[in-house]
Amino acid sequence: MVQEHLAGSVAQVLGANASFYRAFTKGDFEAMRGLWAERNPVTCQHPLSPTLIGLEAVLESWRQILREPPPLAMRCDDPVVHLLGDVALVSCYEGNGDHPAHLVATNGFVREVDGWRMIHHQAGPLGRARSRPPAPTLN
Amino acid sequence: MVQEHLAGSVAQVLGANASFYRAFTKGDFEAMRGLWAERNPVTCQHPLSPTLIGLEAVLESWRQILREPPPLAMRCDDPVVHLLGDVALVSCYEGNGDHPAHLVATNGFVREVDGWRMIHHQAGPLGRARSRPPAPTLN
Repeated sequence: MVQEHLAGSVAQVLGANASFYRAFTKGDFEAMRGLWAERNPVTCQHPLSPTLIGLEAVLESWRQILREPPPLAMRCDDPVVHLLGDVALVSCYEGNGDHPAHLVATNGFVREVDGWRMIHHQAGPLGRARSRPPAPTLN
Repeated sequence: MVQEHLAGSVAQVLGANASFYRAFTKGDFEAMRGLWAERNPVTCQHPLSPTLIGLEAVLESWRQILREPPPLAMRCDDPVVHLLGDVALVSCYEGNGDHPAHLVATNGFVREVDGWRMIHHQAGPLGRARSRPPAPTLN
């Protein structure tokens, strides 16, 4: 039962993490806003940039990023979820479209009453871009 | 009481965070090893580098970094603690000696039986180095 519960939580966190990259790719600010925590403090560190503290500053940054045309087709490779009770950290790589991943990222989530919400995002450059993992083959 | 408890936890997290930079500066691998969580999963993303997963890989990276002479005088500026129960995220800037901070970082901690331990570290370059905050003045 405990294992099933944990597996369910990890799947939920991966779902929230995927929603983040979907909102990014679609340039969907409302979806992005809906992902960030409202009942917990938030921070965001965009590549090469100083820390944004608090929901207002974080959402304003996303509003600006997501209105830039054309939208970036942001992809998340190799997400690793570490679950710590009602908090989860996801480590992953970020790439644009089919290009090798050029960023390494941390995404923090907390379980709020209506699901997992984002509390933190940091993305920074990789020294060497990382090839996209091969698509899984069906046996 | 709750406020006092929270303030106490934040102070403890700041203490653990300061210990991390002290171990870094002293090149003290044993102190660094003692800081990392043993009962929770850990990850580490050094600047420009891919994610290290698990205690063995993380500690091996620190063993290599800390034996490089001369030790870096790593400084942590403007740490902001966000407490989420028994998990804490610290956002801060990192500088070497008296130079402006050249990195932005996330440090994750979890409360284990014997205190706050590190579960995650990500540091990435800042596009523009950030001046060291002025030393507090005594009134």
